[in-house]
Amino acid sequence: MASQQFEPPSGTRDFLAGDLRVREHVFATIREVFERYGFEPLQTPAFERLETLTGKYGDEGDKLIFKILRRGEHEASGEADLALRYDMTVPLARVVAAHGSRLPVPYKRYVMGPVWRADRPGRGRFREFAQCDVDVVGSTSPLADAEVVCAVADALTAVGVGDFSILVNSRRALTGLLAVYGVPDAVGGGVLITLDKLDKLEPAEVARELVEARSLDPGTAKALVDDLTAPDAVGRLRRTLAGEEEGRAGLAEVDRLIEFAAPVIGAERISFTPRLVRGLDYYTGVIFEVVAAGMPGSIASGGRYDRLIAAMGGPDVPACGGSLGVERIIGLLSEEAVSLPRLDAAITLIDDDAAADAMVFAAGLRRAGLRAEVYLGSSRKLARQLKWAADRRARYALIYGPQDRAAGLVTVRDMDSGDQRQVPPGQLAETLLS
Amino acid sequence: MASQQFEPPSGTRDFLAGDLRVREHVFATIREVFERYGFEPLQTPAFERLETLTGKYGDEGDKLIFKILRRGEHEASGEADLALRYDMTVPLARVVAAHGSRLPVPYKRYVMGPVWRADRPGRGRFREFAQCDVDVVGSTSPLADAEVVCAVADALTAVGVGDFSILVNSRRALTGLLAVYGVPDAVGGGVLITLDKLDKLEPAEVARELVEARSLDPGTAKALVDDLTAPDAVGRLRRTLAGEEEGRAGLAEVDRLIEFAAPVIGAERISFTPRLVRGLDYYTGVIFEVVAAGMPGSIASGGRYDRLIAAMGGPDVPACGGSLGVERIIGLLSEEAVSLPRLDAAITLIDDDAAADAMVFAAGLRRAGLRAEVYLGSSRKLARQLKWAADRRARYALIYGPQDRAAGLVTVRDMDSGDQRQVPPGQLAETLLS
Repeated sequence: MASQQFEPPSGTRDFLAGDLRVREHVFATIREVFERYGFEPLQTPAFERLETLTGKYGDEGDKLIFKILRRGEHEASGEADLALRYDMTVPLARVVAAHGSRLPVPYKRYVMGPVWRADRPGRGRFREFAQCDVDVVGSTSPLADAEVVCAVADALTAVGVGDFSILVNSRRALTGLLAVYGVPDAVGGGVLITLDKLDKLEPAEVARELVEARSLDPGTAKALVDDLTAPDAVGRLRRTLAGEEEGRAGLAEVDRLIEFAAPVIGAERISFTPRLVRGLDYYTGVIFEVVAAGMPGSIASGGRYDRLIAAMGGPDVPACGGSLGVERIIGLLSEEAVSLPRLDAAITLIDDDAAADAMVFAAGLRRAGLRAEVYLGSSRKLARQLKWAADRRARYALIYGPQDRAAGLVTVRDMDSGDQRQVPPGQLAETLLS
Repeated sequence: MASQQFEPPSGTRDFLAGDLRVREHVFATIREVFERYGFEPLQTPAFERLETLTGKYGDEGDKLIFKILRRGEHEASGEADLALRYDMTVPLARVVAAHGSRLPVPYKRYVMGPVWRADRPGRGRFREFAQCDVDVVGSTSPLADAEVVCAVADALTAVGVGDFSILVNSRRALTGLLAVYGVPDAVGGGVLITLDKLDKLEPAEVARELVEARSLDPGTAKALVDDLTAPDAVGRLRRTLAGEEEGRAGLAEVDRLIEFAAPVIGAERISFTPRLVRGLDYYTGVIFEVVAAGMPGSIASGGRYDRLIAAMGGPDVPACGGSLGVERIIGLLSEEAVSLPRLDAAITLIDDDAAADAMVFAAGLRRAGLRAEVYLGSSRKLARQLKWAADRRARYALIYGPQDRAAGLVTVRDMDSGDQRQVPPGQLAETLLS
């Protein structure tokens, strides 16, 4: 049998203790921040009805949904009736529809857990990966947008991502801009998708794509790109949008978001960034992206999406939210960044007559909140067992051989210094705690 | 659209904050106990390769496996290549095979997470439910069995299941018993499955089934049942097995387990119970079940299964473990049993000019570790907002109206007593913390 058959399925991972502790540390840290904001946790099933998911993620997305075969007599049909969760937003929409009256208004929830996509696995791209979302459903207040941005920023700081910037724009400002330049609504979405490439491509290349792929005339394409990328893009955009109502409303919502968030997270961390577009077409208001020094792409993003819950099958309620690129963030941290719990006591067992006593010593230490293990191997050689204690990164090894027992004392060996002392069994916990 | 379409799929549940906090409290409490024993966490993917799971759970089990359709060009075939995790043991076997050299010896691991079975949903029976297992792989020491039993008992105590008893037996003792009565190996498994019903059926009924379904002669059937159910069953079994080597070894391993565990968990909690059989056929040594006063069935169980890891596709290593019926345990606890976090401060907003200040107050409180929320609704009426604060179970409401602002003070209202006082903004955190 090839050893590959024991690997986890393509695109998935086994998390052994070291990696898992780093992940759990990150999740716990983020959770603590979100809880301080009054966001509530939510957990939905790993799978949804197939019809709940299909048609919500576009044609490309639909192809990446993992579908589950009908069971029982229907299995032979080869038909699917369930599908693995693809993101956290559709389940949120379903929960708001199903449990609306039991939910607080607004409903502020966070969620952390795996989603599954049948993407081609690659470096840093998985078929099972964690998403971490925070959303406010049922409020149109600009303070809701600001709370989301501040919660995301606080969470990043808490997990140790220090040097980041938050780029802010507004879909309404962008819509106003397209209106000013007479871009027809029918091609507006495509134009935004092309403009979204301004963070990767040269302005001239983007302008060329606007002409070739989106059928804009060259003058309009150049003016649009210039407005978004000029050194004084903010001032230019304000002037361009001065006479356009939707555009002015968009500028105002950006200004308000920054007004509310800057005193909390620091004015130097947040800035109006006209060239920020974000590819997804469901945003209706402010949008944001978080970039970190030395990292390509964004590590968090979000915005207001007042019509998405309805489009996803839920009621027609306003909402805004953010998503942390938690797999990327975990990738930044090493095991060393997280203080892993050390074993406090490795209890050796050099003759079988001491086995019951070893269990009692372990129980006493555990009752005191310490981590203790009894040697479970078959060797009765002390050197071998001290090697085990070192492998387990134990702070102390306990030795209870015939001489110790005769004296009614336990030998406590400091595994870092090698120092040994004898203590009465009843004082083991306090000795190790001191 | 029927509202049922918004319910989670049949046999699954949405966990809103209240229920989820109870679950997470239980998981965290159990985790803390297992960590004190030096067990390490493990997390494997939600799905495995289909061939990793099929053939491991018997014909009935195979029918309950949720299968995932192949993706891409193969989707139309209606074939499955992946399947949702059915239990935690097969993934453990695969991990031991895949990562053996990176794992400590013995490998002590705990795991808590969902498994999926396409069972008919019913009261207390779900298609997605949590399992919580603790296992020691790679040790034949009776101390390993005792550690598992003690860890399970400590976990039950820690989550508040007070009044429980641990029943212990040995598969080797039962095998010896069958040998003494000349039961052929070929029917031994079936005889054990029938004997397993002794906890539900009258002894005479079980004896009748042994004759009718397992072809034992009536005398043998009666002697077997009597040995396991007599008032002095322990003494009878010791006498019956006195001349049978395997049976004596079984009795010795039960005695050792009780010798090691009783001083730790209390002798009154653990007892040799000859009629304990356990239906699963993979046990090879001691077996145990935990029963709680007033609850039918068991709330935890386990035993030694020295050949299962190999049978499940892993290397041939000895192992023992236990499983907590964590869904049943959670069902015993009410939300009231868990102290849910209260909102510390509900920050009202009765005029828009105070919005930025409200955000700053919230930020200061959060920095001090408090939970604070800013009102995100559109009403500017204080009474409405105090109702919101009460709904959020806030300890304090903050009010910062024009008069407060003129005085440079924030009104802090105790939501339980209704008392109000004014404090400088810089002293909000210390006021609420005191």
